[in-house]
Amino acid sequence: MDVDALIEWTLEQAIARDERGSPPPKLAAAIRHAVFPGGARVRPQLCLAVAYACDPEGDLLPAASVGAAIELLHCASLVHDDLPCFDGADMRRGKPAVHVAYGEPIALLTGDALIVKAFGTLAEGFMRAPDLMVGVTRILVESIGMPNGIVAGQAWESEDDIDLTTYHHAKTGALFVGATTGGAAAMGADPEPWEALGRRLGEAYQVADDLRDLAMDADALGKPAGQDARHQRPNAVDTYGCAGAVRRLQNLVQAAADSIPACEGSGALKTLVHAQAARLVPAPLAAALA
Amino acid sequence: MDVDALIEWTLEQAIARDERGSPPPKLAAAIRHAVFPGGARVRPQLCLAVAYACDPEGDLLPAASVGAAIELLHCASLVHDDLPCFDGADMRRGKPAVHVAYGEPIALLTGDALIVKAFGTLAEGFMRAPDLMVGVTRILVESIGMPNGIVAGQAWESEDDIDLTTYHHAKTGALFVGATTGGAAAMGADPEPWEALGRRLGEAYQVADDLRDLAMDADALGKPAGQDARHQRPNAVDTYGCAGAVRRLQNLVQAAADSIPACEGSGALKTLVHAQAARLVPAPLAAALA
Repeated sequence: MDVDALIEWTLEQAIARDERGSPPPKLAAAIRHAVFPGGARVRPQLCLAVAYACDPEGDLLPAASVGAAIELLHCASLVHDDLPCFDGADMRRGKPAVHVAYGEPIALLTGDALIVKAFGTLAEGFMRAPDLMVGVTRILVESIGMPNGIVAGQAWESEDDIDLTTYHHAKTGALFVGATTGGAAAMGADPEPWEALGRRLGEAYQVADDLRDLAMDADALGKPAGQDARHQRPNAVDTYGCAGAVRRLQNLVQAAADSIPACEGSGALKTLVHAQAARLVPAPLAAALA
Repeated sequence: MDVDALIEWTLEQAIARDERGSPPPKLAAAIRHAVFPGGARVRPQLCLAVAYACDPEGDLLPAASVGAAIELLHCASLVHDDLPCFDGADMRRGKPAVHVAYGEPIALLTGDALIVKAFGTLAEGFMRAPDLMVGVTRILVESIGMPNGIVAGQAWESEDDIDLTTYHHAKTGALFVGATTGGAAAMGADPEPWEALGRRLGEAYQVADDLRDLAMDADALGKPAGQDARHQRPNAVDTYGCAGAVRRLQNLVQAAADSIPACEGSGALKTLVHAQAARLVPAPLAAALA
């Protein structure tokens, strides 16, 4: 199975569907700009890896639609986070941010359209498995909405009194939990045992992001570096120090692999989790701490 | 059946669900501010009226979740439309707009959270009818997303070359079509024959809104008057003149009533459409033109 190709194909189908007929041209172009070319597509890869581990012989197209929906929600959150009223970031993935390229009104609508498109993509994918649609919708809603999803995480940045764990789980972890539990639910498996994997990988990813944000320069990152410090957001490196943050990352990845429930593909999935995690620590940091 | 009470109860359930636990307080308060007290709740009333006409003995709770979802999407579009980068409106429904009361970042997230909540509300409602969830999701996505829903309608305002009919259908009509076809689909009826009713009522409502926007003062409207003229948006009164716009409104309502497909409750629904429509023309205008 070529997972990368399946993810890009599913995303392309979702975007192309709305370009038929006569959509408003600027918004159509901005949506494409926000989704292609993508970042690492970490969340849909995780979603499909879990789905494949649950049922290596099963139909993966519904799971691909969950993965694509999660990626679209992630892209939506990036477009809105980059707006002047939040981070005011000019660059994203090495290109001008959507609001820089198309203006603020179109950027706002791009985020809205991507959220809607996520649920539309889900509906297209689950025409093949309609009885599972309610369950996966609830999982996605929990990952992105109130009270504990991405939108809530972003809203904590407007509060004076923040609990670091709650904030990080909502801002980053919730969508990883959506990826693991959504991947399982798409195959008709019980999603609950897959929550720990998503939660721990989400925490690991957040720590890795904090390390990258401070350690690398803006060119390599594709966005302005030091955003957290500039916006006075809580950061794992401030809390644990650099070496402490790397140790925490490694412990989280081990705990994530250990949490994988018994299933047909659990061995291969464990190997994959460790292999992907090795790429999370920026190379110069890994060398310095070896 | 007390439709108004059922709508408010379903909306209250949807909002209260996210206030459990520890949501970010400002966003939770802003979401409530955006939804209560509501406007006329025209779209969910239409949705439930169609559902009831399709099957007066059926379970109306799934249809109520469609109606509530549509109202939440409508509220989301109002919160985002009022932002400084679009209309920059300070007042809405006689209260400060969300961005005035809670700031721009929270207003942006309120719209996002309401879109997500709409699909979550649908998922809760269709736990009672899971096999219908894919169909109603597709209807909602079409009503609000690209290429022909509300988000597309708003995006046309950023284009130089606008087709008036396309613009109005997307900005207003699409969600009325969602209300009629979604109400039918929630009862397991074929949605397609209900499209014309939604389309014509949406057009009628748009004409009525244009008449109100020009004819009434800001106090009675609950929002600043003359927004369309100020933002140089296409307006039915400019196109047809005042008396012409009223005649067009009346013709559209008649065409809407005539389009109601044969079903158990079609007679009662026709009466309801005419009764509701009589309230659409502002009283001073109706008197002046009588």
